[in-house]
Amino acid sequence: MPVSAEFDRLRLVLVDVRNPLNIGAVARAMSNFGFPHLRLVNPYNVAFQNARSAVGASSVLASAEEYKTVADAVADCSLVVGTTAVGHRDLEHSLIRLETGSPTIRTHLASAPCALLFGSEKFGLSNEDMSHCHWLMHIPTRDEHSSMNLGQAVAVCLYELMRDAKVPTEPPRVARRATASSAAEIERITDALLQALRASDYPKLNTSKSFHSAVRRVIRRLHLEQGDAEFLLGMLRQMIWKLKRNRETDA
Amino acid sequence: MPVSAEFDRLRLVLVDVRNPLNIGAVARAMSNFGFPHLRLVNPYNVAFQNARSAVGASSVLASAEEYKTVADAVADCSLVVGTTAVGHRDLEHSLIRLETGSPTIRTHLASAPCALLFGSEKFGLSNEDMSHCHWLMHIPTRDEHSSMNLGQAVAVCLYELMRDAKVPTEPPRVARRATASSAAEIERITDALLQALRASDYPKLNTSKSFHSAVRRVIRRLHLEQGDAEFLLGMLRQMIWKLKRNRETDA
Repeated sequence: MPVSAEFDRLRLVLVDVRNPLNIGAVARAMSNFGFPHLRLVNPYNVAFQNARSAVGASSVLASAEEYKTVADAVADCSLVVGTTAVGHRDLEHSLIRLETGSPTIRTHLASAPCALLFGSEKFGLSNEDMSHCHWLMHIPTRDEHSSMNLGQAVAVCLYELMRDAKVPTEPPRVARRATASSAAEIERITDALLQALRASDYPKLNTSKSFHSAVRRVIRRLHLEQGDAEFLLGMLRQMIWKLKRNRETDA
Repeated sequence: MPVSAEFDRLRLVLVDVRNPLNIGAVARAMSNFGFPHLRLVNPYNVAFQNARSAVGASSVLASAEEYKTVADAVADCSLVVGTTAVGHRDLEHSLIRLETGSPTIRTHLASAPCALLFGSEKFGLSNEDMSHCHWLMHIPTRDEHSSMNLGQAVAVCLYELMRDAKVPTEPPRVARRATASSAAEIERITDALLQALRASDYPKLNTSKSFHSAVRRVIRRLHLEQGDAEFLLGMLRQMIWKLKRNRETDA
């Protein structure tokens, strides 16, 4: 699994996790976002074996390491961060939002290993587990429902770690890099639309002087892209042809 | 469930989802982050009932709504955004990163409803589903493993939508203050255009399967404003009336 040197320094540590589906989900998110090192402390053995042998189990699971204690699992790390839901116990630690803690972890990973700890599905990290941490981090959920599914919590934390604050927030229209239609093309569409309306006996066409201008303005507000303008022009021409041919048949 | 007016305007739409555990996981993430409105298009009925009756099923699931078609599920939304993994098919749409698209969605939610679509576990959104979207968004995963678990993908997207408190929550002040057309209005225009093309014997209409989707995409790229949509619809209806009347005269 090709990963950045930075992400290669993260150790994601699951403590006392019981559900093989959750272990598999955690490994999948790690593979999605490019974090290869999973460590399990005291996993329920059957769960771990089931997760490993699941169809499509990733290389993350294949290379996952087992540890007896949290102390062993974080021994090579110079920063240890625990995760917790807000307000489910009295905390002795600093507790900061994911967005706030993430840049600190990134900075640390640039040069040294860091452990990120997640606790069991039912109880989270124990006070004893937390005592190995430098500080704690929480995902900013609603107070009324702060307990997240383990696989989802891991996915959100890893996403925040790898998301790019520098990505431009330009509107999608620009991202598409479509070429805008030229004024000449837009005028051709306007003409074709007026012609089609004339052939359809559109009522306001002759009664309202400002109608031509209104049509011209509407077409310009559409911000037509080049290919789309040609596409629509072709449609209008087909309608005009049919409307006129019918008229000749009538006569 | 107390939520912000902004998040109350998001409709999270699951299309053809099959696994009750996934539906439950999606609802849980929605409840964690404070987005109340879940819509299911054509859910496998047993899956939906199982998810609803699961222990701890949230108020999100209890109030989830079922729809027969994507068009119905997004009808009240003036922005429709699809999600997809990168590179799993040739896309006809703008495809932008989650970080880039999210501020645009936030800005839209400040004043109007937006739909966020997720496809089935196996196949994602179909080209037909995508044709209802204004643009597509992807989570920035590794190229080698871009397919995310559905519940995790939803959690990451909702987290990104709610993460940054500094994102402006008021729409940019534009001089014109135009209201974007709803998906229902845009679908009416699409239908009218297809009807007009049919009445004009437009050649590709029956030979190309993807033609309907192509028309649907073009109309959505126009970023139609409300008044303009009504204006154009009136024009199309006049053409259809004339084309059909002529046809009757012919016969």
